[in-house]
Amino acid sequence: MSVSALQHARYAYNPKLPEILSGQIDNISIKLGEPTEALSDKEELREIFKLTYGKPLVSFEKGKNDKINRELKVGVILSGGQAPGGHNVIAGLFDGLKKGNQNSTLYGIKGGPGGLIINETVILTKEIIDQFRNTGGFDIIGSGRTKIETNEQFASSLETVKKLNLDAVVVIGGDDSNTNAALLAEYFLANGSKTQVIGCPKTIDGDLKNEHIETSFGFDTACKTYSELIGNLSRDTNSAKKYWHFIKLMGRSASHIALECALQTQPNICLISEEVEQKALSLYKIVDHICASIIKRAENGENFGIVLIPEGLVEFIPEIKNLISELNDTIANEGDKFVSDRTFSAQLDWFSGRISDISLGILKLLPPEIAQQFLMDRDPHGNVQVSQIETEKLLVGMVTKKLNVLKEHNQYRGKFGALSHFFGYEGRCAFPTNFDSDYCYSLGFSAFVLIASGLTGYLSNVKNLTAPADQWIAGGVPLTMMMDMEQRHGSKKPVIKKALVDLNGKPFKTFEKNRDLWAEKTCFIVPGAIQYFGPAEVCDSPSITLRLEKEK
Amino acid sequence: MSVSALQHARYAYNPKLPEILSGQIDNISIKLGEPTEALSDKEELREIFKLTYGKPLVSFEKGKNDKINRELKVGVILSGGQAPGGHNVIAGLFDGLKKGNQNSTLYGIKGGPGGLIINETVILTKEIIDQFRNTGGFDIIGSGRTKIETNEQFASSLETVKKLNLDAVVVIGGDDSNTNAALLAEYFLANGSKTQVIGCPKTIDGDLKNEHIETSFGFDTACKTYSELIGNLSRDTNSAKKYWHFIKLMGRSASHIALECALQTQPNICLISEEVEQKALSLYKIVDHICASIIKRAENGENFGIVLIPEGLVEFIPEIKNLISELNDTIANEGDKFVSDRTFSAQLDWFSGRISDISLGILKLLPPEIAQQFLMDRDPHGNVQVSQIETEKLLVGMVTKKLNVLKEHNQYRGKFGALSHFFGYEGRCAFPTNFDSDYCYSLGFSAFVLIASGLTGYLSNVKNLTAPADQWIAGGVPLTMMMDMEQRHGSKKPVIKKALVDLNGKPFKTFEKNRDLWAEKTCFIVPGAIQYFGPAEVCDSPSITLRLEKEK
Repeated sequence: MSVSALQHARYAYNPKLPEILSGQIDNISIKLGEPTEALSDKEELREIFKLTYGKPLVSFEKGKNDKINRELKVGVILSGGQAPGGHNVIAGLFDGLKKGNQNSTLYGIKGGPGGLIINETVILTKEIIDQFRNTGGFDIIGSGRTKIETNEQFASSLETVKKLNLDAVVVIGGDDSNTNAALLAEYFLANGSKTQVIGCPKTIDGDLKNEHIETSFGFDTACKTYSELIGNLSRDTNSAKKYWHFIKLMGRSASHIALECALQTQPNICLISEEVEQKALSLYKIVDHICASIIKRAENGENFGIVLIPEGLVEFIPEIKNLISELNDTIANEGDKFVSDRTFSAQLDWFSGRISDISLGILKLLPPEIAQQFLMDRDPHGNVQVSQIETEKLLVGMVTKKLNVLKEHNQYRGKFGALSHFFGYEGRCAFPTNFDSDYCYSLGFSAFVLIASGLTGYLSNVKNLTAPADQWIAGGVPLTMMMDMEQRHGSKKPVIKKALVDLNGKPFKTFEKNRDLWAEKTCFIVPGAIQYFGPAEVCDSPSITLRLEKEK
Repeated sequence: MSVSALQHARYAYNPKLPEILSGQIDNISIKLGEPTEALSDKEELREIFKLTYGKPLVSFEKGKNDKINRELKVGVILSGGQAPGGHNVIAGLFDGLKKGNQNSTLYGIKGGPGGLIINETVILTKEIIDQFRNTGGFDIIGSGRTKIETNEQFASSLETVKKLNLDAVVVIGGDDSNTNAALLAEYFLANGSKTQVIGCPKTIDGDLKNEHIETSFGFDTACKTYSELIGNLSRDTNSAKKYWHFIKLMGRSASHIALECALQTQPNICLISEEVEQKALSLYKIVDHICASIIKRAENGENFGIVLIPEGLVEFIPEIKNLISELNDTIANEGDKFVSDRTFSAQLDWFSGRISDISLGILKLLPPEIAQQFLMDRDPHGNVQVSQIETEKLLVGMVTKKLNVLKEHNQYRGKFGALSHFFGYEGRCAFPTNFDSDYCYSLGFSAFVLIASGLTGYLSNVKNLTAPADQWIAGGVPLTMMMDMEQRHGSKKPVIKKALVDLNGKPFKTFEKNRDLWAEKTCFIVPGAIQYFGPAEVCDSPSITLRLEKEK
């Protein structure tokens, strides 16, 4: 395998561990707290998780641990979208296992949870692990989005862990995957299997966090990669002075990524979906908000700028949300009569009378190439594929239209040229920052301690993350204590609650305090590429979001 | 001004200089070679450049230089598209000037060559320069694309340099800007002005190189920024194993950027425009070439990959080149009768009979949203805006169509999902690599020595760039010796010859030797983010293109 100079150099990096985990391996004991409760819907959750509900919080302390030197067999799964640091979770788990007992075995379960169902595994050796230390990506064993949902899938998974004689399975995933991990833990226990299940909090989106989880891994690296690009574009436009860059950022529903990137780069505009929803801002209001900055800056002679747009925005704009829902309902009911056709106007005619006049009006007002994305691109269930809608181009189109009108009325005298971008996949597999490298390695190592101590249905947890790594606090959080019941596809399901941007939290408040200034003036900050070897203030700072949240 | 931690850290970086330039300032003397000649069209060029044609090559050597301590007034212009390192050219020039004589003055000419015409300048002080050392972008004084072409523009420029009493103007630009610099040098001399003109070779596109210029600055940083992103995408797709990424890369006509990125990242496919032209490859052939890799990889169970596409590709595909030319001619002749209309088919009807059946057929075969880009988006002269054509989406559309047909005939059994990207603006203003930081600083310092020595019509030149910086060789190349005459907008003009990819050169040959393997297997290399502080092999290597070219 031929690797880059950086990859080669990163092999030599030794991730930092919390003090308790870096000492003698048999001097890590488990301290149990009080029994816990779910966030709400306690009775229903207690019913679903008969054997795993309400476990105590777990922390580690120095002390004899007789169990830790047992020979173990553990499987590890990478679930869902890539996040930088996944390889280090596996490396930390591997090193912990081997430190406990050289004969322990780590199985990589290939291609996501689907690999557990069909028993597709590989034994992870030191030679393999060493090729992936401190690298991005999930390519060591691949990932996948299969959910273990049906009885057959659960039964096949049980069969696999029995065949491999696994003491535990570690699921590295987001909110959905960890909910799945909790169900699997319960299922194994209920069926007399010894196999424990431990989760690890992964997602670049940053929406898997709560009282116990300070941040999900990958968020730091992904945001810094996007901020590098945003900063470069801001310097570019501040040099050429002729373009507004409209940049959509990955992150699903939550706007954590957009907010963090805004704090890092100080763009002229950053839209926050959670605020759009709370204030029920219409598309017009949003366009007005952007135009106000463009007009003000044009008056200052600055016909350029940066606009950040969270991926999930369209779903939070009331009238677009409504439009999407009407389109989905219509197709669900009469989809067989709808013929995809090249002519946009024929499509519009078809929907006329089938959807509300307001929704039809919006479709007609959208730039035609974007309106077509609402009509044509559908997922296998016939739903509008929201993530495929080019919101960045939609806004460019609407803003251009509005500025043209204002120009005709002499209310705008600037020049407007726009370019649009979408940054997403570029950040999911970057080499993890030192922070994510350390954090992930600690999560993996901590998962080993939880396993060795015989726990199941827990999330590996590392806290106090703004302190130096040796002061980090490792332990475990019962998965059920982060859950409630939510409506999904027509029935109530247990879920780990997603964290949206808290409009009363310090990160948003900090942004809110500064944004009027940023909208008018050029306050760009250019973070540059992620650095791994330089001064600590360049290489080791965690995200601004995390730092501000910890200040409170 | 609030700056990022990296920017702050980069202020402290001391760019490396060739040994001759880092010693005693009054111990740098000028060594003149033999008189030179233009590449061709010698008589015509001698006629245009009566006073500046045929000057000798210049190198620096140790020796007394009485002129170097003169008090000088110099203006500096950033011309055209941004390239990382421009600020360091200015810093090197500034430091040279001040080392020569503390009373010397550097004027920043604002907003590109246009600033010279209208006398918009700023005196660059140490305080200003220090805020821009080792940073990307041209924001210190802005850039612009105005060419000094008309008699009035030349006269106004002369007026400005007289008013400011400038001893010299340094033009930091690409081939066009340096041609302009040569004309300006001649004009000033012909009009009795003392103002010398010195050029510096800037362009991320890498097409300003020849026997004397080893590389233009910015190419190294831009390619490494794009390669970071391509590498991240390759790791992402090798993890999720479900997408083909079609990535268009900036670089105008030449494919140097695409080729360098291919050498750095080893994608499955990289198209090279120069080869497409040489072999007169049709769009169908290109689509076949891509499909062959997709099919082969699908047989190996790998339904994912990376395709790199140079920005200028469409202009090199014979039938598309012809289509563009027919569309341009039609609009030029009958544009007043063409009504932009929403209905694509109405537009097609209009062109029917006006363009050839072959061209009409191609338009109908293109994905409709791309075909519309050929019909609707036009520059102020009514020409198709080639750079706006989404070639990456065009190819996705054509490849999808072809694979669907093959699937129907049971000749393809894979799954094909594609995502498209365009990387360009993201790389133009990145913090310059150590290589570009050193190279640019040396170019600026060398420009000072040329100025102090009384030379005009020269390009600042630094060679031997694959050796350690202290062994670099600095000097000057007469601008006229890199010129010939070319047809531009209907008349013959002097131009500095652009370098396209040499299909017999070592960079292309290296790619050619490996590409069949890369097309089938997964050989991705993930370079990661540009590093400034780590081990030399990670931080200081020049581009692979340059290294291979120097090997020959």
